[in-house]
Amino acid sequence: MRTALRLAARGLGRVWPNPAVGCVLIAPSGRVVGRGWTQPGGRPHAEREALEHAGAQAVGATAYVTLEPCSHHGKTPPCADALIAAGVTRVVVALGDPDPRVNGRGIARLKAAGLLVQTGLLAREARDLNLGFLMHRQLGRPMVTLKVASSLDGRIATASGESQWITGPEARAAGHWLRATHDAIAIGRGTLLADDPVLTCRLPGLEDRSPVRVVFDARLDLPTEGRLARSVEGGPPLWLLCAPQADPLRRARLEAKGVRVVPVATDASGHPDVDVALATLAGLGITRLLLEGGSRLAATFLAARRVDRVAWFRAPSVVGGDGIAGVAPFGVDRLTDSAVFSRQEGRTLGNDWLDLLTGPDPLPGTAAAFLGPYSD
Amino acid sequence: MRTALRLAARGLGRVWPNPAVGCVLIAPSGRVVGRGWTQPGGRPHAEREALEHAGAQAVGATAYVTLEPCSHHGKTPPCADALIAAGVTRVVVALGDPDPRVNGRGIARLKAAGLLVQTGLLAREARDLNLGFLMHRQLGRPMVTLKVASSLDGRIATASGESQWITGPEARAAGHWLRATHDAIAIGRGTLLADDPVLTCRLPGLEDRSPVRVVFDARLDLPTEGRLARSVEGGPPLWLLCAPQADPLRRARLEAKGVRVVPVATDASGHPDVDVALATLAGLGITRLLLEGGSRLAATFLAARRVDRVAWFRAPSVVGGDGIAGVAPFGVDRLTDSAVFSRQEGRTLGNDWLDLLTGPDPLPGTAAAFLGPYSD
Repeated sequence: MRTALRLAARGLGRVWPNPAVGCVLIAPSGRVVGRGWTQPGGRPHAEREALEHAGAQAVGATAYVTLEPCSHHGKTPPCADALIAAGVTRVVVALGDPDPRVNGRGIARLKAAGLLVQTGLLAREARDLNLGFLMHRQLGRPMVTLKVASSLDGRIATASGESQWITGPEARAAGHWLRATHDAIAIGRGTLLADDPVLTCRLPGLEDRSPVRVVFDARLDLPTEGRLARSVEGGPPLWLLCAPQADPLRRARLEAKGVRVVPVATDASGHPDVDVALATLAGLGITRLLLEGGSRLAATFLAARRVDRVAWFRAPSVVGGDGIAGVAPFGVDRLTDSAVFSRQEGRTLGNDWLDLLTGPDPLPGTAAAFLGPYSD
Repeated sequence: MRTALRLAARGLGRVWPNPAVGCVLIAPSGRVVGRGWTQPGGRPHAEREALEHAGAQAVGATAYVTLEPCSHHGKTPPCADALIAAGVTRVVVALGDPDPRVNGRGIARLKAAGLLVQTGLLAREARDLNLGFLMHRQLGRPMVTLKVASSLDGRIATASGESQWITGPEARAAGHWLRATHDAIAIGRGTLLADDPVLTCRLPGLEDRSPVRVVFDARLDLPTEGRLARSVEGGPPLWLLCAPQADPLRRARLEAKGVRVVPVATDASGHPDVDVALATLAGLGITRLLLEGGSRLAATFLAARRVDRVAWFRAPSVVGGDGIAGVAPFGVDRLTDSAVFSRQEGRTLGNDWLDLLTGPDPLPGTAAAFLGPYSD
């Protein structure tokens, strides 16, 4: 199952709105006869790939699958049927699929055909891997990862606005890898106007893995001749989330350039409402959203308690209190009002390092209840 | 030698102005026959302790000493003579002693008596351990460690000033251990007036290891009936560094309470001059100084490039940009002006973690030149 999870991870950021699934087929001899993972765009599914790989060797094999095989006729016949037809006799599933079209029916179908089905193996890991997909289906919003790259004292730029580069090349490469494993990356208006960043994944070999670029741009201030606007042609999609009352002329001009303009209801302060924006992005298929900057976008999402993971890159330098803060004020008066995370891991990246943290569980209880412990 | 270094570390913070030395005696059979470390106050020396422990078994033994044995008659006869007299035949020394009264003479004395002397074993580690002592003797100033305990985004308190507690009990215990291993801890006037902290080491079993408490208090604003002032009686020493023109009446009143008042020349902005203050503290014997707060004291020392080590405790919370910064502005306009450190280690402390960093080498070249590589 660990191998299947590693295979599944290959799909992160490029299978949305589908889950990233991995599958390993093991013959009775113990030999691996098939390996598969969800392909870019979401098809073929992992099980199909593994069965294709195994051919006749699938007869009598055990399938390790990170997510419950599908049971509904979509673009292709259901994977549960394919496993049965190929002669697989035992299926070990990490996690149930909460999609209402599956939701236990895949497992029931396998059992009805006489296959031995076991569930819950490495369920926690499978849940972490596909948290974005699970949240998309169960909460109707994507998982949100906040990325910050700062100095020791939490500054993302000097008082004069110089921000390139606080962290070194190793940390920046890891930042591009974060982009590659998310469906979309978002920036706020301040970062747009200050940096006009291109927001593509530029890791050698991963240039084709740039996610959708999302800009919170209430008034459609995107400079039509800027770097970002010009990168739309031939580049990854660019979506602007604007206020419903944004200038229709600007909108038409941007749409003519290939930019997708998405009106989103604003909150009391005239900014796009976080929950409406997330629901809108989920409606467009996004399951994993990376917040790339700047400090006001981070503050808005933290205030709304809509940050599920934090990736904080840190350089060993001190900029001082007049540098630009990584997170703008968001109304924390008492320490108990702070946004609290839990540190999962620290990694050294050249002279810098990365702390990975998770927020409160966005799906408390549900997964455990759905899965149960690993059972024979 | 690793054992000797570990023994030496027991003296950190309580042997000033002397070095913290460790000594292990090994019989020709390979058995450890003596162990010693510099005792509180600086006497007896490590070699004396180890020889006392070994008795007649020192004959023919090898001594591993973390610092060159002394060669001058101080309060006691020189340790080099004691090693010779005890019948030790080989001495392995990690590091030479730059004190002008020693500076190679200890080693020469041993060699002249026919002992085999080898130098430079784990010299880097010995240098790191006694950096404060070495800087005191070679630069006339203590080593300076900056301690900060902040949120993920570098805040030490909320906008309303609430700071207790950003970090949890494990990090706070490690903070008290930092106090115990420094000769003195310093705070600025802002922290004094905001918190009036007692600044003692309150780790169970280490209550007697509280360092000297130093307050940068230019105008002698220490509240005479505050917690800190009242803790002088029966507590560790309290030194106030004030401007030369501070009110003599206040001074007399504070001195009557047992507070030591030390005038220090001020810089252009009316604050005690960092280099004068450090030279003054060195003159009073301090070899290891811990900066405990607040953000302006940190900024002043960072601006003067007088921070040699950083111990940054961090909680997994985000306070936001209106929280109080760990480091005040200190004139960084370009990123190249930042204070740059090198991360040596990260430690997990409950929910929090600690990053340990070092600044630019305050003694470039000197130690290496003095020591040479480990030689037979």
